[in-house]
Amino acid sequence: MEQEIRKDTPIKFEIVKKYVEIYNPRNISLGNTRIISKIVDNIENDTGEKFIRMEMGVPGINPSEIGINAEINALKNNVAGIYPPVDGIPPLKNEISRFAKLFLNVDISPDNCVPTVGSLNGSYAAFMVTGRRNKEKNTILFIDPGFPVHKKLVHMLGFRQESFDVNNYRGIKLKEKLAEKLKNGNIAAILYSNPNNPTWICFTEEELKIIADLAKEHDVIVIEDLAYFAMDFRKDYSHPGIPPFQPTIANYMDEYILLISGSKSFSYAGQRIGILILSEKLTKTKFPDLLRFYSNDILSNALIYETIFLTTAGVPHSIQYGFADILKAANDGDYAFVDDVRIYGEKAKIMKKIFTDNGFKIVYDLDGNEPIADGFYFTVSFPGLQGDELSEILLYYGISSIPLSSTGSLHTEGIRACVSLVRKEQFPLLEKRLNLFSEHFTHV
Amino acid sequence: MEQEIRKDTPIKFEIVKKYVEIYNPRNISLGNTRIISKIVDNIENDTGEKFIRMEMGVPGINPSEIGINAEINALKNNVAGIYPPVDGIPPLKNEISRFAKLFLNVDISPDNCVPTVGSLNGSYAAFMVTGRRNKEKNTILFIDPGFPVHKKLVHMLGFRQESFDVNNYRGIKLKEKLAEKLKNGNIAAILYSNPNNPTWICFTEEELKIIADLAKEHDVIVIEDLAYFAMDFRKDYSHPGIPPFQPTIANYMDEYILLISGSKSFSYAGQRIGILILSEKLTKTKFPDLLRFYSNDILSNALIYETIFLTTAGVPHSIQYGFADILKAANDGDYAFVDDVRIYGEKAKIMKKIFTDNGFKIVYDLDGNEPIADGFYFTVSFPGLQGDELSEILLYYGISSIPLSSTGSLHTEGIRACVSLVRKEQFPLLEKRLNLFSEHFTHV
Repeated sequence: MEQEIRKDTPIKFEIVKKYVEIYNPRNISLGNTRIISKIVDNIENDTGEKFIRMEMGVPGINPSEIGINAEINALKNNVAGIYPPVDGIPPLKNEISRFAKLFLNVDISPDNCVPTVGSLNGSYAAFMVTGRRNKEKNTILFIDPGFPVHKKLVHMLGFRQESFDVNNYRGIKLKEKLAEKLKNGNIAAILYSNPNNPTWICFTEEELKIIADLAKEHDVIVIEDLAYFAMDFRKDYSHPGIPPFQPTIANYMDEYILLISGSKSFSYAGQRIGILILSEKLTKTKFPDLLRFYSNDILSNALIYETIFLTTAGVPHSIQYGFADILKAANDGDYAFVDDVRIYGEKAKIMKKIFTDNGFKIVYDLDGNEPIADGFYFTVSFPGLQGDELSEILLYYGISSIPLSSTGSLHTEGIRACVSLVRKEQFPLLEKRLNLFSEHFTHV
Repeated sequence: MEQEIRKDTPIKFEIVKKYVEIYNPRNISLGNTRIISKIVDNIENDTGEKFIRMEMGVPGINPSEIGINAEINALKNNVAGIYPPVDGIPPLKNEISRFAKLFLNVDISPDNCVPTVGSLNGSYAAFMVTGRRNKEKNTILFIDPGFPVHKKLVHMLGFRQESFDVNNYRGIKLKEKLAEKLKNGNIAAILYSNPNNPTWICFTEEELKIIADLAKEHDVIVIEDLAYFAMDFRKDYSHPGIPPFQPTIANYMDEYILLISGSKSFSYAGQRIGILILSEKLTKTKFPDLLRFYSNDILSNALIYETIFLTTAGVPHSIQYGFADILKAANDGDYAFVDDVRIYGEKAKIMKKIFTDNGFKIVYDLDGNEPIADGFYFTVSFPGLQGDELSEILLYYGISSIPLSSTGSLHTEGIRACVSLVRKEQFPLLEKRLNLFSEHFTHV
């Protein structure tokens, strides 16, 4: 790293340096969250100092008691001894269908609603079948920035991938860029997350329509990752059956897979539960090329009864009951799940201001003409520093983050901040540490 | 089907025929357990008659209260909100390591012990890395008969497969047959289950050594499926730390993956938990060909931190606590898990006699010179009938099963009987129905 770090940093210089070197600074550049966490855990242990932990995209809220109680009940009823249906227990399938209607305003049959072992498992299943339904289409297109794990997954599965940073192609400019990417006919599916990890940008309705129209034109399936469901707090998506509804590609096209995670919107990360929703058309269309690997040429059947069944044989039984009750309560209006997570937006608003008051800039700052929402993540940079340098230097100031470069962003000067594990009581400390950092580095 | 079925069968002829035709008799021939179950569910509903249900290999015993209570505790401690470590929580890893020592007499570091979402998930991970560690070795060899699901999985993953029915190659004859299969150098891994599903044969120590020696000679990894752990009831493997121990390839070679399931020995099928154990050598050897798909060239890392992480991100948190306590109790000698499942052997002994008293033969009957054990499954045939015919005809007699042909067995006259869901109170009914069947079909 080029920048000199002063020895009088808030966190003891030698200790930070020690662990950065033990775990290899390259892992910071690569945004290896797990390793960055280990570095910070070690520093915290040795120094007794608490960090402002912004590196991990994990929930910072207790899981729903409704789910926990339902799981406990199910366990007491001995579901642990009975194989769950691989396509999901009927109460869960029904509640997913209701959820889609009440919060997305989309009509989906319960047959097309499947629980998965976390939405990562849903991503896996989605890539496997979309990437194999047509021999000529063997490439996944990522609209970046994105979740690096998805790229590793696609690579591991043996598919090709392409990507582009959407930052310079917002609004109508998206059309030409996307058309360019799709024109060769090799793209099997497009994936994006909305709201976006790491930037928190949210696609506008115009952008969703552009994606949908081009996907239809080029016979591409859209995989929409709704991990941060209803968390664009600029609008209130929280009332079942009452507009506005969570935006979705499903309003614009009929060949899609939606992934909803239990981990962030419902703080149920530990139990590994996600939802996969298939559009009706994908349950009807035959794709003969699937027969190279599957006995089913219907995509939904290949996904559920083979891709999922053969690799996990379904989601644990008690957890399905737990999540069914969570969704039921949300659907019935008894559990205002969005209200529980609004705190992320509140924290982001304050934290962004602390950063910008100290010379930082918000990297991804607009959706169209509107400032992006305050939510789970935001992105910042500091003049004169590259993102990986910034992530490393901020460790000496007791703040952890990941560089944007690992996410496919071209804004390599940026870092991603996750607000989840930062407590409001830590804001004065954040302010103090950023003051000092800013003082030390403003000459740069 | 060639055989005429009399109209005076115990289960109303027209109703059985109706559902067999709705669901397609081909599904019986193919051993599609799920579909056979649906046929039987429908017949039971319509007729009010209960079947002797022998088609489904599912546990017939309540899950352990120890596990349930531990899960409930963990849920109350909010683990549902915290991502589990992908390689397993330390208490579980430790207990798996102890379990390996106390019941297999094998020394395995907790580092090499990983929970998976059912042992099917462990199979998936094992195939993925063994099948890719060497470009030239892209074929999985199944020692049949076996679990058809494994073959579908390997096919779905895009690997090649070969297999042979071991029935004619028991004992020393296994050596030549296996050598023939391995000589081309294309085999990446060998898989077998021991005790075996569907036949309940158990490999002798001589046979395990033959497999191990040839695997070593040809650089083949052995994947040993111990789903029916300690369930060869001819010996008492149930006392922790006291011989005899569950036989294992780990006694004979050092490149293996062991799969242990929570579903049968521990009746924990609903929660989807299995154990994967890697031999030490697989945590040390570099396989550069893995780098085609993984960032790790160490097999264990590619397995845990990529193959598992990228497709499930680990086993649900509360379930890991549940299973850790189950194993701890087994390890401490407080939970005689083998005693709980002995009932399967007791039932098999009686049921086999009822079958053989009525003209049936045990198809796979010997391990070496010794009769096979009485356990979870057994195999029978009836003179003059093919297995798929027999499975179909027995439906009219209120007995369900699956044909052996779907398992890779060359004994196409056989069917697999699972004792799990058959209640002792049903034995007189089984006797009565088989009497009638035998009377009707002995002329054949």
